[in-house]
Amino acid sequence: MLVYYLRLMARIKIDKNSSRKEVIVAKAAALFREKGFKAASMRDLAESVGVEAASLYNHIKSKTELLHELCFGVANRFMHKMDEVESQKIPAIEKVETMIRFHIDEMINHYEEVYVSDREWKHLSDPYLSNFQNQRRMYRKRFAALIEAGIRDKEIKKIDAPTAVLILLHAIGGIESWHRSTQKISAAALTDNMITILVGGLTNK
Amino acid sequence: MLVYYLRLMARIKIDKNSSRKEVIVAKAAALFREKGFKAASMRDLAESVGVEAASLYNHIKSKTELLHELCFGVANRFMHKMDEVESQKIPAIEKVETMIRFHIDEMINHYEEVYVSDREWKHLSDPYLSNFQNQRRMYRKRFAALIEAGIRDKEIKKIDAPTAVLILLHAIGGIESWHRSTQKISAAALTDNMITILVGGLTNK
Repeated sequence: MLVYYLRLMARIKIDKNSSRKEVIVAKAAALFREKGFKAASMRDLAESVGVEAASLYNHIKSKTELLHELCFGVANRFMHKMDEVESQKIPAIEKVETMIRFHIDEMINHYEEVYVSDREWKHLSDPYLSNFQNQRRMYRKRFAALIEAGIRDKEIKKIDAPTAVLILLHAIGGIESWHRSTQKISAAALTDNMITILVGGLTNK
Repeated sequence: MLVYYLRLMARIKIDKNSSRKEVIVAKAAALFREKGFKAASMRDLAESVGVEAASLYNHIKSKTELLHELCFGVANRFMHKMDEVESQKIPAIEKVETMIRFHIDEMINHYEEVYVSDREWKHLSDPYLSNFQNQRRMYRKRFAALIEAGIRDKEIKKIDAPTAVLILLHAIGGIESWHRSTQKISAAALTDNMITILVGGLTNK
């Protein structure tokens, strides 16, 4: 009875940099990555946050709302970065390198959100689903356009730009294995190795 | 009744280059890729082969046997290629390129088997499971050793070889998106682009 009372009283732990809702979304990302969106329950989430399921509903409406927060939150970060990079006055190959570094950094430091946004978006429903798919398509086109600009400027080898985007994004997706690896090299070394191989592979020398 | 009789009489279609069992294994690969090993049934398989489920059992014992055939069949092909390449008297960077080309070719031309072997091996049971995992680990070590030899010979940039293997294998895994793409470049162009970026990225110039 006392335990029950204590759990009811438990507040969601926050630090000064994140709201209660942000804590819930972060825990949801970890849970959805581990169990998959379908299999994860609000009860699992409440347990992971350390509160009763009922108190989650003070902050979010549904499991679906959490998927929206995650997918569109990640999409926004990538879109903002792309806007920023496109407007910079630097050579195209440097723009491409900046975007590759951003992807690597996201995969290292915001792994769970990125993973969920990349795999579990299939559980979105329309209009969210088509909207999200269109954003992905558009993002890849803009990434390919950066590469095409680099080819025109002879900074990047003559390659098929959409294929290069496919290769880059999948290679960076391999950071999933790095997270699971028991004998990890450091995040900085991982980033250096990826940049050496991928930017080195694109650069026209 | 006539339909039933005709179906009973139906023989598994083969051409002179493949046995009935090979046809069944190939159809199983397509089915397991599409539905996943767990969800696919022997009835689905019989339908895809165009015979009654009962007649499948003249050729194979169980769904599990098919998973073994697929996983260990693919593992054997990669191991044989690695044996062959290791024994060649060519520079290490060329060995690495040969293996990358082999991976690309397998992903293009034997996509379904490779996909199933790469994703669905989790459904193997011991002793097959640990045996298969050990083979994968060993294969990656041998691949990394080719890269390390190239680094020693100054043909390959100073990179972390296991990380390079991770990047290469995931990048090549991106051919999955190519298969799904509606606006595909040719297989030859895909291969050229991958070699340009990946071998170009490794090569010490």
